[in-house]
Amino acid sequence: MTTARRDTYTPDTLLSVAVRVFNERGYDGTSMEHLSKAAGISKSSIYHHVTGKEELLRRAVSRALDGLFGILDEEHAREGRAVERLEYVTRRMVEVLTAELPYVTLLLRVRGNTDTERWALDRRREFDHEVAALLKAAAADGDVRADVEVRLATRLVFGMINSIVEWYRPDGRGMGEREVADAVVLMVFGGLRRQG
Amino acid sequence: MTTARRDTYTPDTLLSVAVRVFNERGYDGTSMEHLSKAAGISKSSIYHHVTGKEELLRRAVSRALDGLFGILDEEHAREGRAVERLEYVTRRMVEVLTAELPYVTLLLRVRGNTDTERWALDRRREFDHEVAALLKAAAADGDVRADVEVRLATRLVFGMINSIVEWYRPDGRGMGEREVADAVVLMVFGGLRRQG
Repeated sequence: MTTARRDTYTPDTLLSVAVRVFNERGYDGTSMEHLSKAAGISKSSIYHHVTGKEELLRRAVSRALDGLFGILDEEHAREGRAVERLEYVTRRMVEVLTAELPYVTLLLRVRGNTDTERWALDRRREFDHEVAALLKAAAADGDVRADVEVRLATRLVFGMINSIVEWYRPDGRGMGEREVADAVVLMVFGGLRRQG
Repeated sequence: MTTARRDTYTPDTLLSVAVRVFNERGYDGTSMEHLSKAAGISKSSIYHHVTGKEELLRRAVSRALDGLFGILDEEHAREGRAVERLEYVTRRMVEVLTAELPYVTLLLRVRGNTDTERWALDRRREFDHEVAALLKAAAADGDVRADVEVRLATRLVFGMINSIVEWYRPDGRGMGEREVADAVVLMVFGGLRRQG
């Protein structure tokens, strides 16, 4: 079915093939053989670029994590009232998720069977804590509701945002990234019910 | 590791073992051998109860679907203003999800590789449409926000609710079912931001 191609891969293009295969088969279910077939190059050609599939996983989830942590360094995430920073971070999370869809999808599916997976889970947890801290600060300012516990509210907000990977497809026919980000911000901060 | 036990299973207790294994290994990755080992009875004993693993899947997802569709027949889901019915259905969805956690988890992970899986996906979609119709009616009444498209709002609400299976564990130590249901209703309808 596949013809061996001349290896014209760069680490980045090889990565995008690997991420697609990881998302289709699961990381555990992917062998170097699968990667070699999907890329149309030999296993030894892949080893020319990376030490193995775990390095590909690490590069892939790093890309997602760098995108997410990068948000926290942006000016609007660092300056101003906590609730406004939280709103900014929420919008940017949706933007990073849609822009880096396969990488974030992979990150969200990591299970914790290898060192790299455990590291990725730790980093995800760290990011969650940063957002929870922002929510806590906004609650202390009296700007967000105090009747839902911070950890629970954070989980529900992440649940809503992360679920986007299940259906969002950037094919230009469906909903745009902007529409989704707007909707999430409106829903998370204002809720469904029209205010009197 | 396992000793063959006398087959004291009923279809229901066998089902709960099967659902646990399906959730751990994935339905595709589960063989009758795995089920036999987990249940501690022979494969032929399992065939005494069911025709095979697909029947177990069908029973399991039926239990989740019956729980969800049952909500729509309840009085508070059928009478009153659409927004109130929607709020009732939202709360009950969380309750069914937490009460039938392994069954709903399995339902949400169904992929569509077999007839039973495709049937389950169709039924899920049907349920989603019922809830979307309720949301649409509430919007027509002017009770919910009109600035988020109904289909998108429905997806985000389901995303928040369904994400609960990822972390909720009914072990009595963590959050209670009631606390989670209250939080979801407050967040979905009122959002995070404290109203002036």
